[in-house]
Amino acid sequence: MHGIHGGDRYRNRIRLDFSVNVNPLGMPEAVRDSLHRAVELCGGYPDIEAQELKKAVSGMLSVPEESVLFGNGASELFMAVVHGIRPGKILIPVPSFYGYEYAARAAGAEVVYYPLKPEAGYLPGEDLMDALSEDVDLLFLANPNNPTGRLVGKEYLGRLFSACRRKQITVALDECFIEFCGREHSMLSELPCLDNLLIVRAFTKIFAIPGVRLGYLLSENAALLDRIKRQLPEWNLSVFAQAAGIACAGQSAFLEETADYVRRERRFLAERLEGLGLRTVPGEAGFILVHSGKDLYHGLLRQGILIRSCDNFRGLSEGFCRIAVRSRKENEMLLEALALMADEK
Amino acid sequence: MHGIHGGDRYRNRIRLDFSVNVNPLGMPEAVRDSLHRAVELCGGYPDIEAQELKKAVSGMLSVPEESVLFGNGASELFMAVVHGIRPGKILIPVPSFYGYEYAARAAGAEVVYYPLKPEAGYLPGEDLMDALSEDVDLLFLANPNNPTGRLVGKEYLGRLFSACRRKQITVALDECFIEFCGREHSMLSELPCLDNLLIVRAFTKIFAIPGVRLGYLLSENAALLDRIKRQLPEWNLSVFAQAAGIACAGQSAFLEETADYVRRERRFLAERLEGLGLRTVPGEAGFILVHSGKDLYHGLLRQGILIRSCDNFRGLSEGFCRIAVRSRKENEMLLEALALMADEK
Repeated sequence: MHGIHGGDRYRNRIRLDFSVNVNPLGMPEAVRDSLHRAVELCGGYPDIEAQELKKAVSGMLSVPEESVLFGNGASELFMAVVHGIRPGKILIPVPSFYGYEYAARAAGAEVVYYPLKPEAGYLPGEDLMDALSEDVDLLFLANPNNPTGRLVGKEYLGRLFSACRRKQITVALDECFIEFCGREHSMLSELPCLDNLLIVRAFTKIFAIPGVRLGYLLSENAALLDRIKRQLPEWNLSVFAQAAGIACAGQSAFLEETADYVRRERRFLAERLEGLGLRTVPGEAGFILVHSGKDLYHGLLRQGILIRSCDNFRGLSEGFCRIAVRSRKENEMLLEALALMADEK
Repeated sequence: MHGIHGGDRYRNRIRLDFSVNVNPLGMPEAVRDSLHRAVELCGGYPDIEAQELKKAVSGMLSVPEESVLFGNGASELFMAVVHGIRPGKILIPVPSFYGYEYAARAAGAEVVYYPLKPEAGYLPGEDLMDALSEDVDLLFLANPNNPTGRLVGKEYLGRLFSACRRKQITVALDECFIEFCGREHSMLSELPCLDNLLIVRAFTKIFAIPGVRLGYLLSENAALLDRIKRQLPEWNLSVFAQAAGIACAGQSAFLEETADYVRRERRFLAERLEGLGLRTVPGEAGFILVHSGKDLYHGLLRQGILIRSCDNFRGLSEGFCRIAVRSRKENEMLLEALALMADEK
């Protein structure tokens, strides 16, 4: 049992972690400083309105302050979405992040799955439009998707979300990894036209602070936002989350640098993995879905390297694992470990 | 409008905050150190199982590890309780903390109120037993209660909770302030006999770290705990919350010191407030409910001191405010400010 989520560094002795999809550039220095300063603010309650954070994020994204809702990580927001909407039926393409299903179950909703097909490169097709039956209330969709890493074009998404709108289906679009691909791929600009669209993002992955817990939800549907907000505990953001978020919002150059770096390293890593005889899915995110006939997970774990076994992903056949794109040095260490495994057999 | 919660230091210029009920001794030094160290852990996900924290708290309280569930503050746990139990009808004595009603509304439950009467010193009486009708599914109760500060005896609570058990009513007992009164007043020891009892506590108030967000729920009913756990987002505890909690769990001498300090200062402050012609409710917590014909809230705010106006507490007549017990020096500054107001009129 590898756990339902990313590899577990708390229950394994590891020297390299390729199981979680965190920015290989690491936490910006300004964020680290803000967290140390936040220690001295812990004696007071966090701002229940997160006023300064809201202003900073609104400025960073050029969206109205009223359109932003913060969560203790994206996972809290997924939960609040299903409790706020109370959907009877939820449509989830698979394979995808387990958190959508977890949230759906918490609200007691029925879940139907749309299979992303290997022959379509795990990209959703026109048949997803057909799956939008009238009794579906909510569609979860990630772009880029996890664990496939595949990025869907904006033209397709525009048509899909408009079709959802006509059928009164709310869309929870998970863009937690979008900044690894480049912000130009985001559906942010479509928010004013699509009142059924919720975009969920996290600061934790792109700014390499998963320990902090900070996500946000964007929507221009005030009534919908209000229903979701009422499902959030009242002081859900720690002073650390607020301080880190404010510091992150000023790091736009870091975002550009990250997208460039990850694009370069992903290409390098994917080519070398293919060179080692592994089959990779041609994704665009900060991680690579890899298929192998060998047990890569345990083989690497024996060498102190943790990757994400995808055996427990619904809608994925056996033999897949997900490998994060790390720094060049770490990627080379991984490749060496894999080469060693190849020699062994 | 003073806000539904404690005074708002983010929207007011203040020099002294008596509006929030945080330990006047401040954060223990070991906790501050642990938070600084936690900054360096932010690049990794928090432990989803909170293994070390669970062990520490289980040891501190002498309860089995399986009986403890952690939340991002007590407020998240209240929300998870109502979503997990899905009660049709909830009974809430008033006046009390607004968070119970907030959580009840999130789950769409009907709320009925039991009035705590001034002539009974705001203590619940035998008539609360009568209010336990068969269609009530959940009772929220705080001991000591907020904002009255009144502590209910264990004998009464034992009878009340047993009556609830017979009527299949779950009890969510809020003990967030119990350690200010002394741990001997807790119903912790009754958990094994009462499978309908949930005890909710927070680290944030007693250890003076409200900015961190960390609460816990105790129950020996495994099925009930599991239903509540499924309502919690998967990584609800930051690395800061886990690190601080582990450090706090080692501070038992600090708890004794706090209870002694607060007992002494509460007596001092209450006597002086009475001396200034204010009527105080004889509570036992780390705050005092005060009644005055004057507008204490605005009078003190003009002097840079924030207290909690209780005008928006359901079930409380006008003219009440809640004053935290602070350090001797701060308490004297408050008394001086009040004396100044008395002279003005």
